[in-house]
Amino acid sequence: MASEFAKTPEPPYYAVIFSSQRTEADAAGYAAMSEAMDRAVRKHPGFLGIESVRGADGRGITVGYFRDEAAILAWRQHTGHQAAQRGGMERWYNHYELRVAKVERAYAGPEGRAMDPPAKGKQP
Amino acid sequence: MASEFAKTPEPPYYAVIFSSQRTEADAAGYAAMSEAMDRAVRKHPGFLGIESVRGADGRGITVGYFRDEAAILAWRQHTGHQAAQRGGMERWYNHYELRVAKVERAYAGPEGRAMDPPAKGKQP
Repeated sequence: MASEFAKTPEPPYYAVIFSSQRTEADAAGYAAMSEAMDRAVRKHPGFLGIESVRGADGRGITVGYFRDEAAILAWRQHTGHQAAQRGGMERWYNHYELRVAKVERAYAGPEGRAMDPPAKGKQP
Repeated sequence: MASEFAKTPEPPYYAVIFSSQRTEADAAGYAAMSEAMDRAVRKHPGFLGIESVRGADGRGITVGYFRDEAAILAWRQHTGHQAAQRGGMERWYNHYELRVAKVERAYAGPEGRAMDPPAKGKQP
């Protein structure tokens, strides 16, 4: 899965924050689905990037970035993704939280823009 | 650090998505800072919750949830947090991306609300 950083454009755009706890069931099926979904979402219109981390304890956070709400809704209704959602509900996840959020500002560092730029009378 | 799920209220509220790659430097100093910041942010006015995962490769995603922009700005200017930010820029992170986003909708599962509820003529 994606361990690079997402190369997103200037805000605004949307983030889908998917926070989950894996079951111990069906590691092979989960890995295959996860790879297939990673490939599929990258071809999805309006997809901007993905960042994903899972710890040794099965706790994971994946953030997908999309151009707009329409792109998110279409991805949600994608046939392969709907099958993955069913697998997630039935056997792969003990629990998940999914949040859809509009990204308003973004910073990068330490080599890029400063995280805490000097005050210029401008709300960061 | 936080491996539970954040108990956030109904949207809207704000998410600070912090995606980072650790250096291999100063593991003890990083761990101490990380614990101290976890304790401090939980006492911060307007803090709603935190979810954090780091993989064996040093790639991490932490999402902090806050009531509003004012709470985020105040946390950014918190004295202990500013020292942590400097340590992060100087030695703990090879790279990070920080995004501030307004959470508009949230779902939980599989035991809670359905991720893909039946159509009721309501935009999910």
